Amino acid sequence: MSYKSIIYSVSRILLVEAALLTFPAIVAIIYGDNTLPSFAVTMGLLVIIGLIGSRIKPQKLSIYAKEGYFIVAFAWILISLFGSLPFYLSGSIPSFVDAFYETVSGFTTSGATILREIESLPKSILFWRSFTHWIGGMGILVFVIAIMPKTESSSMHIMRAEVPGPTVGKLVSKLRASARILYGIYCIMCLAQFILLCAGGMPVFDSIVNTFSTAGTGGFAVLNNSIEGYNNLYFEMVIAVFMLLFGVNFNLYYLLAAKQFKQAFKSEELRTYLGIILSSTLIIAFSLIISGKHEIGNSLRHAFFQVVSIITTSGYSSTNFDNWPVITKIIICMLMVTGACAGSTGGGIKVSRIMILVKGGIRDLRKAINPRSIETVKIDKRTVDESVVRSVSMYFGTFMIIAVLSSLIVALDGRDIVTTFTAVLTSMANVGPGFGAVGPAGNFADFSVLSKLVFCFDMLAGRLDILPILMIFSPYAWSRKY
Amino acid sequence: MSYKSIIYSVSRILLVEAALLTFPAIVAIIYGDNTLPSFAVTMGLLVIIGLIGSRIKPQKLSIYAKEGYFIVAFAWILISLFGSLPFYLSGSIPSFVDAFYETVSGFTTSGATILREIESLPKSILFWRSFTHWIGGMGILVFVIAIMPKTESSSMHIMRAEVPGPTVGKLVSKLRASARILYGIYCIMCLAQFILLCAGGMPVFDSIVNTFSTAGTGGFAVLNNSIEGYNNLYFEMVIAVFMLLFGVNFNLYYLLAAKQFKQAFKSEELRTYLGIILSSTLIIAFSLIISGKHEIGNSLRHAFFQVVSIITTSGYSSTNFDNWPVITKIIICMLMVTGACAGSTGGGIKVSRIMILVKGGIRDLRKAINPRSIETVKIDKRTVDESVVRSVSMYFGTFMIIAVLSSLIVALDGRDIVTTFTAVLTSMANVGPGFGAVGPAGNFADFSVLSKLVFCFDMLAGRLDILPILMIFSPYAWSRKY
Repeated sequence: MSYKSIIYSVSRILLVEAALLTFPAIVAIIYGDNTLPSFAVTMGLLVIIGLIGSRIKPQKLSIYAKEGYFIVAFAWILISLFGSLPFYLSGSIPSFVDAFYETVSGFTTSGATILREIESLPKSILFWRSFTHWIGGMGILVFVIAIMPKTESSSMHIMRAEVPGPTVGKLVSKLRASARILYGIYCIMCLAQFILLCAGGMPVFDSIVNTFSTAGTGGFAVLNNSIEGYNNLYFEMVIAVFMLLFGVNFNLYYLLAAKQFKQAFKSEELRTYLGIILSSTLIIAFSLIISGKHEIGNSLRHAFFQVVSIITTSGYSSTNFDNWPVITKIIICMLMVTGACAGSTGGGIKVSRIMILVKGGIRDLRKAINPRSIETVKIDKRTVDESVVRSVSMYFGTFMIIAVLSSLIVALDGRDIVTTFTAVLTSMANVGPGFGAVGPAGNFADFSVLSKLVFCFDMLAGRLDILPILMIFSPYAWSRKY
Repeated sequence: MSYKSIIYSVSRILLVEAALLTFPAIVAIIYGDNTLPSFAVTMGLLVIIGLIGSRIKPQKLSIYAKEGYFIVAFAWILISLFGSLPFYLSGSIPSFVDAFYETVSGFTTSGATILREIESLPKSILFWRSFTHWIGGMGILVFVIAIMPKTESSSMHIMRAEVPGPTVGKLVSKLRASARILYGIYCIMCLAQFILLCAGGMPVFDSIVNTFSTAGTGGFAVLNNSIEGYNNLYFEMVIAVFMLLFGVNFNLYYLLAAKQFKQAFKSEELRTYLGIILSSTLIIAFSLIISGKHEIGNSLRHAFFQVVSIITTSGYSSTNFDNWPVITKIIICMLMVTGACAGSTGGGIKVSRIMILVKGGIRDLRKAINPRSIETVKIDKRTVDESVVRSVSMYFGTFMIIAVLSSLIVALDGRDIVTTFTAVLTSMANVGPGFGAVGPAGNFADFSVLSKLVFCFDMLAGRLDILPILMIFSPYAWSRKY
């Protein structure tokens, strides 16, 4: 393994984080927050360490699959460690573990919080908190690829490790161009949302911060009561529609930009994603009406908002859905695990993986009926490679095993079983809220330090499709020299 | 598809059920129960239908994979339908759906009950209730293969569909001989348990019935309070040890009988199974001691009993474990899903499948580290065929999808989420009790008819490794003619 390549690459990412911290620092200056020193110290540390690390330049940057995973894993852990310093140093979050938790939750776009009181925090801190969603949504390494002057062909391994989904396709032949297109689309959509929110009368600062949180499908809000706090149908609908859009595979937007409309709308994953949203919204709205929780209009409104918020793994709440009927809660749990489309900023297992899983199950059934027949799994009328089918089902199995093992550790806290299990599930799927004590009205503050670290592990594992995070704990990966 | 072969085979199985009903009928005569007419009517119906069906003998009995699955699925549904008649006709269970539920729960060795009051039931009914466990444990079709004068080579497809586990091996070259050996071992072990229970002072009737329930890893008891009702350490330990033994792959007993001790104890599945039992017992006992639920002796006693009862999917209870700390509940949920060894009478996903799943996950991790390496999944030092690895992970995925969809329907009853989800899980794993309202002290009586039918589906799907039950709902399976 080329340690030098790893140290060099990670160091460059830390320098990028230092640069990104100028934005909250500017906000601190504008609002006259006393948090400026915290940002300055963090930036200083990052620059020093980044510059030292960048001097360890290998003769030849050799990034193979394994190095790619290691770079991604370490980069995410380190940007979270350093990213938590402003929270800690400014005194906004007095415990370092809590600050680290909040930052991991930010970068992984989970949006789960340990804060009970948000509204009194300095603006610059709120800005940085949601800005981590924006950075983590599309991926900091993809960002690095986009802005670096020359990119090596081996960067594909980094992109593969950071962009979620069963397979990764380059948009255009050049990787850097692909990364730039992705970020270009990302920025244009953010701008559109920002303008729409401002136009509806949301304060500029809130519009920026909520746009960051929506774009990354994160869910950190500015108000203690999340989006419910505005009690504004227009805001809810703008945010819901943009959550839905940010949950779509960005490759489709590229196709639209390239005027290949037909190919874009033919996507089976997109249609399944929209189908799940529509049917879940109707079922939930129906059961809300029947149970008398809300009248028809509000049932549809909250059902649509929460379905989109959960399937895109944003985790914003427009009402306390912990009080809803059991059937809606089970649907919400399903949506949590399903997640958004591959190649979007959303988390979860991803719609395309679930499709491969279901189609693989049907294939196995057909194969059992007629053992000599040749059956393949097809998505978009193209055969999915068998190795992909296998790795998808293995991914699902590993996801479940990690969820169960994490629950075991978190259970030591002695919380009830619903709180324990949905806290783990919402962390792994990068959603944010769960049920019980971690419901939309609750938070993660009261868990033990051990549980919080487990949640950090789960959030990182979920965001990075498990492999990179498992790999750094694997002696096999460290020991092999090739 | 050869419908004649299916009708003929299923009819013969109904005749066997008629023959098996003579045992509870004899019990009814001995105890002077007024249930004799119910048994007689049921037997009469079975004989008439069985004889008519047996006349539809195909010219050539052609049982391919698909016919095998269909025979198994229909046989299990029909023996459950007819098997519920004695409960219903005798008035012991006034609702037919409840009687059907109880019988499915019996044959699938789940042991979940809708009865609130067991002790007042006629002895013959209690006998039949537990006898269904004994029949279902090893499998009624294996039984048919064992007793039929000549068996066709195509019966392998039936055995494959009924005997649980990722792969099925014949013990000896002749299938009938294999089936006889299996039932021989089964009967000898039952005899041993019966003698030990009697020797310890348990009434003869209770000893017989509890032996049936233990052997099938079912869990129907004679007392309202299950095994807790005896409050007898000796009984608990005898039953626990035999549950453990009935959860072992019966092939190993054959190896022992053939004096191939080394090969038997080398089994990785056996060692993993025992390892899980040991570690779970210790962790649960430890947390019971710490939480002050029981003192040291009773903690170990109840921990061992419940761990064995749940992993073998028997579902007997020696205490109300619904009151235990959360961590023990999560372990119990894990054990539920894991289940016993393949080729045992226990349910669940099976230890060997979990092993293949975990090893497959590790293999994928290694493959990601070094994409060019050739990595295989090995059990007992032999490479597991890739198609088995794939179907195991698909099995797991399908299991989870059915669990979630079932929960959605059951959620319509409006029970809390823990009750809803563990009720489905315990049904699919053929365990019996879950948590909440379906905990060891509760039962399934209050669910709606729809939910009870869903549970029946889940129990049958779990017992028959999903495929046969899915297949009869698949238009594709019905439509294909070959």
